[in-house]
Amino acid sequence: MKARLFTALAALALPFPALASGVIDNVNGIALDSGGRIVRFGALVIDDDGKVEKLVQGRYQEPEYKPKKPKRGQPWPERPKGPAFKLDAGGRTLIPGLIDGHGHVMGYGLSLVTLDLSDTKSLTEAQAKIRTYVQANPGLKWVIGTGWNQEKWGLGRFPTAAELDAAENATPVWLERVDGHAGWANSAAIRASGVTASTKSPTGGRIEMAAGQPAGVFVDKAMDLIQRIVPPPAPKDRDIALEKAQRALLAVGITSIADMGTSIEDWQAFRRSADRGALRVRIMSYAMGLDNMVMIAGPEPTPWLYDDHLRMGGIKLLLDGALGSRGAWLRADYADAPGQRGLPMISDTQLRNIMSRAAMDNFQVAVHAIGDAANREVLNAVEELNDTYKGDRRWRIEHAQIIDPADLPRFKPLGVVASMQPVHEASDWRMATARLGEARLKGAYAWKTMLDNGVPLAFGSDVPVESPNPFAGIAVAMSREDSQGQPVGGWMPDQRIGFEAALDGFTRQAAYAGFAEKRFGSLQPGQRADFVLIDRDISAASAADIRQTQVLETWIGGKRVYVKGQ
Amino acid sequence: MKARLFTALAALALPFPALASGVIDNVNGIALDSGGRIVRFGALVIDDDGKVEKLVQGRYQEPEYKPKKPKRGQPWPERPKGPAFKLDAGGRTLIPGLIDGHGHVMGYGLSLVTLDLSDTKSLTEAQAKIRTYVQANPGLKWVIGTGWNQEKWGLGRFPTAAELDAAENATPVWLERVDGHAGWANSAAIRASGVTASTKSPTGGRIEMAAGQPAGVFVDKAMDLIQRIVPPPAPKDRDIALEKAQRALLAVGITSIADMGTSIEDWQAFRRSADRGALRVRIMSYAMGLDNMVMIAGPEPTPWLYDDHLRMGGIKLLLDGALGSRGAWLRADYADAPGQRGLPMISDTQLRNIMSRAAMDNFQVAVHAIGDAANREVLNAVEELNDTYKGDRRWRIEHAQIIDPADLPRFKPLGVVASMQPVHEASDWRMATARLGEARLKGAYAWKTMLDNGVPLAFGSDVPVESPNPFAGIAVAMSREDSQGQPVGGWMPDQRIGFEAALDGFTRQAAYAGFAEKRFGSLQPGQRADFVLIDRDISAASAADIRQTQVLETWIGGKRVYVKGQ
Repeated sequence: MKARLFTALAALALPFPALASGVIDNVNGIALDSGGRIVRFGALVIDDDGKVEKLVQGRYQEPEYKPKKPKRGQPWPERPKGPAFKLDAGGRTLIPGLIDGHGHVMGYGLSLVTLDLSDTKSLTEAQAKIRTYVQANPGLKWVIGTGWNQEKWGLGRFPTAAELDAAENATPVWLERVDGHAGWANSAAIRASGVTASTKSPTGGRIEMAAGQPAGVFVDKAMDLIQRIVPPPAPKDRDIALEKAQRALLAVGITSIADMGTSIEDWQAFRRSADRGALRVRIMSYAMGLDNMVMIAGPEPTPWLYDDHLRMGGIKLLLDGALGSRGAWLRADYADAPGQRGLPMISDTQLRNIMSRAAMDNFQVAVHAIGDAANREVLNAVEELNDTYKGDRRWRIEHAQIIDPADLPRFKPLGVVASMQPVHEASDWRMATARLGEARLKGAYAWKTMLDNGVPLAFGSDVPVESPNPFAGIAVAMSREDSQGQPVGGWMPDQRIGFEAALDGFTRQAAYAGFAEKRFGSLQPGQRADFVLIDRDISAASAADIRQTQVLETWIGGKRVYVKGQ
Repeated sequence: MKARLFTALAALALPFPALASGVIDNVNGIALDSGGRIVRFGALVIDDDGKVEKLVQGRYQEPEYKPKKPKRGQPWPERPKGPAFKLDAGGRTLIPGLIDGHGHVMGYGLSLVTLDLSDTKSLTEAQAKIRTYVQANPGLKWVIGTGWNQEKWGLGRFPTAAELDAAENATPVWLERVDGHAGWANSAAIRASGVTASTKSPTGGRIEMAAGQPAGVFVDKAMDLIQRIVPPPAPKDRDIALEKAQRALLAVGITSIADMGTSIEDWQAFRRSADRGALRVRIMSYAMGLDNMVMIAGPEPTPWLYDDHLRMGGIKLLLDGALGSRGAWLRADYADAPGQRGLPMISDTQLRNIMSRAAMDNFQVAVHAIGDAANREVLNAVEELNDTYKGDRRWRIEHAQIIDPADLPRFKPLGVVASMQPVHEASDWRMATARLGEARLKGAYAWKTMLDNGVPLAFGSDVPVESPNPFAGIAVAMSREDSQGQPVGGWMPDQRIGFEAALDGFTRQAAYAGFAEKRFGSLQPGQRADFVLIDRDISAASAADIRQTQVLETWIGGKRVYVKGQ
């Protein structure tokens, strides 16, 4: 069956760049209606613009040709134009292209071309991987990497500069934590930065100290102290990174992504790719702060560019940090660090000013808020701004992880979109329990409550913090179990949601969160024909089975842009 | 005749955005062949892509339709498709769209929306205009303007802060000199900048002093001292400015322009315009320095974007200043300022490093050089770099105004393009004589020598330093007389050139200088159909008559984008 499918595909030999008018026939088709309910179909008809012409029940029928005999001297009427191509999918399951509602495209791409520690399970393993990487890449001026997680290592504390020196002490090394909210430097990097025992932690950040010396880890705003001397990636590096990111996203069925924190350098790479016709994944871009917003988009959001492949529609703000690094801003002390509550990165006045400045020019506002204090603060700000900025604003809270139960009912009436990442729950549940204690977790990762309250719930992965695989995301949304099936039956299982809602979160709702629901996301006629063919019927599968889903083909705008194994 | 033409045009009612397949018939057509020789034609046929399909001798003939009678039961063959539109131009003269080989698009646009002193003939008149402007624009935080020229005022010295205070002393005022190489500040602006009697002139610049105090004028790099506190134009202001610049350029028949010193902010405005389909004038962009080059284009020149409407293909560097402000770098002292020779803005090593860095990634290099020392320095640098950077580089010297006669023969063998602005000669001849004395002017504004030597000679206006009107440029190139007809018979009349060469400089050669000669510039079949209809036959007119030319219509890519009076 599989062999037959691929033969058919190869025979088709569609040139990638051309728009196609065609039919994907004999599919187990799953789309969503405008209310997020599943619609079944057997064939997908694509028009000349690469949009969905119609969804056909059963198999596709060629247009009839039974003309009357023409009058004498007149030619027969033309045969109705059939599709330019027809693909028999052999009954495979076809679902809408998946949308990552919150990711970091360039960060992901750069993580694919730099040292990646996300698969290391201990400090020792990480040190070995660093040594190997340095040996394999001689002549580097800096060793750059990401992905470490002291929780996963079972270290119970941050690693130290000395531990990094043990792996590499000649070249400066700078490794971002998996969540991007902390960085680990070796002594060479700290020396090069000029940070000493007397350097003070900047507002919104923390230099970890040990025996009166910088210990090696820099949290949130303190990361700048090292980062400012790290050579930035060259445009060429970014181009390679973007291409790698696209390939990796397409391979897991992601056809669109919200880029949460686009810099001007990122944007220029997106445009370079699109200008040479190489941007396949649709990017809903949110500028990293005001300066980037003004520099990139100017006086208003950009139009949808390149046939709905790129748009800057909003701004991304960071209000707090992450739970792992205790940067998340809480209403009470961390249970495992008395005296610490995390901190807001910007004041309440700054938050309102920036939100206001962006909203004034019709930019959408997406605020990163993880702790319950941060979430409350954003809701308060939206409440105040809603009087001034009317209309369809779709204020977004990114992550919305820890919410005081009293604040949960406020999302819907304030018109706030919850942009959440199911896999974070699976990665975090042990750590979150440690950080907050059970009693303060009533409003944690509360997907089901959001749905019950009628809040638009967009799902994403926060890639490269987590793998971008949306099937893992759907599985976690349904099970609240991690990849090891832990905890059995799910953590806070009342917050599990059904398959339909999980798929909706990764498609239609993620499009809605980016003002794109009329353009793509659910395979409704008129939308871009973005879809994936997969190896199992996920509508009738267990969460564990869905997690194993393989993407066979990914199509964007009616063009095939990924085939497994090619 | 004129009325009839416009009626025909109005009846046509072509929507601007659509590409057209059509014929401009009954024209006195002037094109250029690939060698720069004039080609005559009577009708221009435009293809579906807005390119020149062919130039027709005499009048356009409809394709013939004399089919044989078809066989029984068969239809008659289809009538050959004629053009979608046909315009009878009533015998008007049609010439290639004019190309400004050196201008400042955003600077021009901003000059059109800020205070413009370029028409003032005395300090008193300028002061009056400033007063009127401030009254007409209440609430300005800064008064910004351009265009003053103390030479034109007959002042014989720079104006002072006190003289500007007399016009406006409450609001800070900052007015750039017409050549952009000096700025005039009032006392409020100087106070706000923090510049005091003890502030030293920066390298590459000069604070004019009087009685030990800053006198009001800041030359070259010293301009930064004030400019850094002047609020930059907002993106919205740039959008308005760009639109104004385009309209003004189209009205004088400019269809393409080399933008000499594009900032990232400029570039984003160009893209915003193009993204909404509003970029009509083709822009060959040269980045202002390395940072902009890397930020805008990245690892290599951009492709031609938006159907050949925009490309960043090179970098612009400033080696020296201008003659007017005595910033031009001379081989001997200024005749009217003993002890001064101007100065290079960057060292010889910096020049080579930047040129090398750009050439390495295949960017074209355009270096501003006005004085004879600066021109020699660029030629020396090119000579050294040519060993490393082979192939078709088209190194450009911008202005190439004062050249030691010994250096003139070096351009051609080194592969250097002379990018010159005829009107500068008309504006400068008195001043240049004063600055250098007659004996050192043998290689000044030496167009004819460049042509005789076989050097590619691209013409431009340096707008907004001069008016962008290319007909004035052609007239000066032919006559070396200014708009008053002075000096009668022309200044250094041996350097006058003929009409054909002058037109060539403002079309084909300016395209060549931007690596665009296959895309537009001379109306050769296959090129973009960029052309203008004008009110007189400039191929048979005197220079003084050519100067009065009125543009009736401007077409770009087969679309009409300007009609006089509409």
